[in-house]
Amino acid sequence: MIKTPYLLFLGDAPDQLAAKVAQGIKDWRPDNAVGQYRMEGCKADLGLADMDLAQARAAGARTLVIGVANRGGVISAAWKKVLVMALEEGFDLASGLHNLLRDEPDLVAVAEACGRDLHDVRVPEVEYPIANGVKRTGKRVLAVGTDCSVGKMYTALALDAAMREAGMKSTFRATGQTGILITGDGVPLDAVVADFMAGSVEWLTPDNDPDHWDIIEGQGSLFHVSYSGVTMALIHGGQPDALILSHEPTRDHMRGLPGYALPTLEALRDMALPLARVANPACEVVGISVNTQHMGEAEARAYLAEVEARLGLPATDPFRFGSDKLVAALAAL
Amino acid sequence: MIKTPYLLFLGDAPDQLAAKVAQGIKDWRPDNAVGQYRMEGCKADLGLADMDLAQARAAGARTLVIGVANRGGVISAAWKKVLVMALEEGFDLASGLHNLLRDEPDLVAVAEACGRDLHDVRVPEVEYPIANGVKRTGKRVLAVGTDCSVGKMYTALALDAAMREAGMKSTFRATGQTGILITGDGVPLDAVVADFMAGSVEWLTPDNDPDHWDIIEGQGSLFHVSYSGVTMALIHGGQPDALILSHEPTRDHMRGLPGYALPTLEALRDMALPLARVANPACEVVGISVNTQHMGEAEARAYLAEVEARLGLPATDPFRFGSDKLVAALAAL
Repeated sequence: MIKTPYLLFLGDAPDQLAAKVAQGIKDWRPDNAVGQYRMEGCKADLGLADMDLAQARAAGARTLVIGVANRGGVISAAWKKVLVMALEEGFDLASGLHNLLRDEPDLVAVAEACGRDLHDVRVPEVEYPIANGVKRTGKRVLAVGTDCSVGKMYTALALDAAMREAGMKSTFRATGQTGILITGDGVPLDAVVADFMAGSVEWLTPDNDPDHWDIIEGQGSLFHVSYSGVTMALIHGGQPDALILSHEPTRDHMRGLPGYALPTLEALRDMALPLARVANPACEVVGISVNTQHMGEAEARAYLAEVEARLGLPATDPFRFGSDKLVAALAAL
Repeated sequence: MIKTPYLLFLGDAPDQLAAKVAQGIKDWRPDNAVGQYRMEGCKADLGLADMDLAQARAAGARTLVIGVANRGGVISAAWKKVLVMALEEGFDLASGLHNLLRDEPDLVAVAEACGRDLHDVRVPEVEYPIANGVKRTGKRVLAVGTDCSVGKMYTALALDAAMREAGMKSTFRATGQTGILITGDGVPLDAVVADFMAGSVEWLTPDNDPDHWDIIEGQGSLFHVSYSGVTMALIHGGQPDALILSHEPTRDHMRGLPGYALPTLEALRDMALPLARVANPACEVVGISVNTQHMGEAEARAYLAEVEARLGLPATDPFRFGSDKLVAALAAL
């Protein structure tokens, strides 16, 4: 578990997009974001107060989060200088970079000397159990996609926010590095050893109040041959009560797989629901989340209306039109 | 890749069952088994020549394989003495024990000093790629089960033997520790990191002659919530042309999951085939392999006849009645 709140390190980000992890934290957990730390030449700006390390400590920040992608996959000397100072000032460090903090001997040495923690959220920090399939109390919803990267994390975060807003009990359960940095904990599922995948999802979503919802972040797709095993573990480890189908209607082919067409929403429903019912016979498909970013507004509304009529389920783009329809469907379950 | 042939180490096995890995090697790759090494009190006997280390070396053995389960999960001092001598005599060591050889400093030191290899087949030795889904040449068959431990490995090894006997080109592709020790290589799929599972199966079953069959060892079950993600990766990474349904008809519940009933063969067929066709649209279910060990002969024959009629597919128990029906179905594909 990463100590909050954070100082968001933007480094020398070449553009706003490079800081998308920091942006996600600021958008979804603004209370976790005390301020931003920008180096010379930084082209990203979250609109947060610019702070140096001492100011951020005084404002309560406990962890410096690397909220920016690094160039060339290495932690530069210029970054390193700031990271060492941050440890010395009393910050833990958290990162989702491929280049692990723990693989940098100087950071490890300073962290040990100062009694600080280094969190590499790409790497599991827990010994997960093997899944036992025992039915847990509380409710769970999982977004499953026709493809990878169709907006499953966004859908889950938006649902969580809307459900809390509506006075419902909910917790976003992160299963990827960005989600883990946003909330401060979760399971880096793509890095878990095969035998423990489903168990890690059970661990992440334990018994809870009968009216509490775990909003489990989806990964991969049953139709994406590179990552379908990860999706399968989410469906069986998460034992969801509700599935939401996620789709991006303008793609030519599955992400990274030129020979593979996207399935229809009907095909996704017909594949995912029987699999989910192995772990939870009461599971239902409750709605559809569509990423319409490549459509005009009229086109997007027409598409959603057509999908609603065709599948007989509420459909929305949570980013563009809100997620109230999906919240209502979950509340009615 | 483990150097063959082997000297099979049976240690102080308390009974024959404890030596089942060694038995598997002797049954399926007799050419790999030069002899057996038994310590005082050993209650297992494979019917191979008893040899000391020097005799086995003289007979050509290159690796001492620990073909027995250890008691209490630790490598005893008595075993250790033999293992150290084996390294000094010029043997590599191979083991599927939980207690890794590489975690024993004295074995590591002697292996380094003597230039010998320690193979822990529970641990991947390769950096696998992420699956790319590109169609490969050659043919592949995978057994998928209604449950774990219903005879998928046995079915695959029996098919491989029968296909070679029939003059067909085939290779058994091991995906578990026993299979890896039997053949000398393979992928320990349950220990592979999630993102690389399907890629490891692609790596294991590369392009081949158009008339060559890879017989891929199955793992887990789509209906077993603890391990279904591993099964999914086999189905999509293996891109099988043919599926064989495996079943054990007398089980009360899924292995290790008291609340879970076994699916029917029809349910398995209807779940597995559409998933397999994502990676290989030409995939067909070609036959059924039933583990009838808990049935009398008349009962077993009646059950197989009933299943054949019900599903319209050839059904056999490969251990009891041979696998010719399945070979014929594959040859006809």
